[in-house]
Amino acid sequence: MIAGRCAPARAGRRHCQSVGLTMLRCEFALLLVLFTFLRGSSSIPPHDEVARMARYIVHACDWGSVATISTHPAVGGRPFSNIFSVSDGPLGKGSGHPYLYLTPLDISVKDMQVNAEVSLAMSLAETGYCKKQKFDPESPLCCRVILSGAIMMVNKTEINFAKEALFSRHPAMPDWPHDHGWYFAKLNITNIWVLDYFGGIKTVTPEEYYSVKPEYEGNGEQKL
Amino acid sequence: MIAGRCAPARAGRRHCQSVGLTMLRCEFALLLVLFTFLRGSSSIPPHDEVARMARYIVHACDWGSVATISTHPAVGGRPFSNIFSVSDGPLGKGSGHPYLYLTPLDISVKDMQVNAEVSLAMSLAETGYCKKQKFDPESPLCCRVILSGAIMMVNKTEINFAKEALFSRHPAMPDWPHDHGWYFAKLNITNIWVLDYFGGIKTVTPEEYYSVKPEYEGNGEQKL
Repeated sequence: MIAGRCAPARAGRRHCQSVGLTMLRCEFALLLVLFTFLRGSSSIPPHDEVARMARYIVHACDWGSVATISTHPAVGGRPFSNIFSVSDGPLGKGSGHPYLYLTPLDISVKDMQVNAEVSLAMSLAETGYCKKQKFDPESPLCCRVILSGAIMMVNKTEINFAKEALFSRHPAMPDWPHDHGWYFAKLNITNIWVLDYFGGIKTVTPEEYYSVKPEYEGNGEQKL
Repeated sequence: MIAGRCAPARAGRRHCQSVGLTMLRCEFALLLVLFTFLRGSSSIPPHDEVARMARYIVHACDWGSVATISTHPAVGGRPFSNIFSVSDGPLGKGSGHPYLYLTPLDISVKDMQVNAEVSLAMSLAETGYCKKQKFDPESPLCCRVILSGAIMMVNKTEINFAKEALFSRHPAMPDWPHDHGWYFAKLNITNIWVLDYFGGIKTVTPEEYYSVKPEYEGNGEQKL
């Protein structure tokens, strides 16, 4: 194609090389743009390695949907869904523990103060993987994990890791209003469900989940 | 830059034009790729038009997180979060009614059969808008809507619209296993919360919500 474009112009070898080089540069730039948008979607665990899949999703997603039992007068006692930023560790250092940065002013955090038992859902629909693979968000192939457990404040021994986990992946957090009483919290996981293939939802025990050693690329990043 | 690249090669005007044209074509291709990925993120309602914002988010998102009260023995009575594909209408024909395609085999649908009161959260984090604007998923600027109400089967008069709404935006759905008892459902909205700016979460009444007339582009698509 490059040679074909040069021929009608009757240009010398040097000019052909110049145009060819320009085209190659452009093609490289195009590939770079595509790669930038599509990365995060190549290496995913086999669907039968369910615990590994759960850890993969929790590390790949940087936000999730938290369900609480509402204490809001309008819908008291009913379920309430809300969005929270989450991180289980800096990229390449996933711990499996979902950390959150909470303020008592949040409508759902008020629920958690009455009943700390929540459910956290995270889906690869958040990462661009499902769209790239043309998997509908509700398809079992658009892998998701649902975690149940209690939200608790992070203790002193864990606070540095929680901070690094959240602030490295949510760089806006340190600047959030200082008078809102932000604190580091984590989900103490008791139950894990994974939907990553046909045949129904599967369970993973916390022991299986935490015993997974995630695979990371040479640069320290999980193969997203 | 184009002229600068030509000059050292000492090529004639025609060759400069050829290289220039090649570069322009490449730049156009680059812009096209960028546009393809970034569309869906330009026009958003002003944050003080809260009902319009709610309608905008519900139409812009094609999935959401549904919270139920679990009936699963392991976490019975606790909240449960799950992912569902949603559509309030074909692109450019948003009705505000969130339609869902459900199977009684689903773990959350089993909960709905006991207690139909659910909560549905949808965030512009799903659309790429927040990432493009560099808004953290938990930031109030990464707009979200939370709807409460009862899940109900769609009746005969509404079924054609529900089908068109869901199948047009989720083309895989018609091929989902025919023995799973799929049915069209919708959320009968009773309460609406919107977080789209600083200053706390805001409420919208269903009357305000349904009275919004969304703005669409000339091609019938909402300005996403």
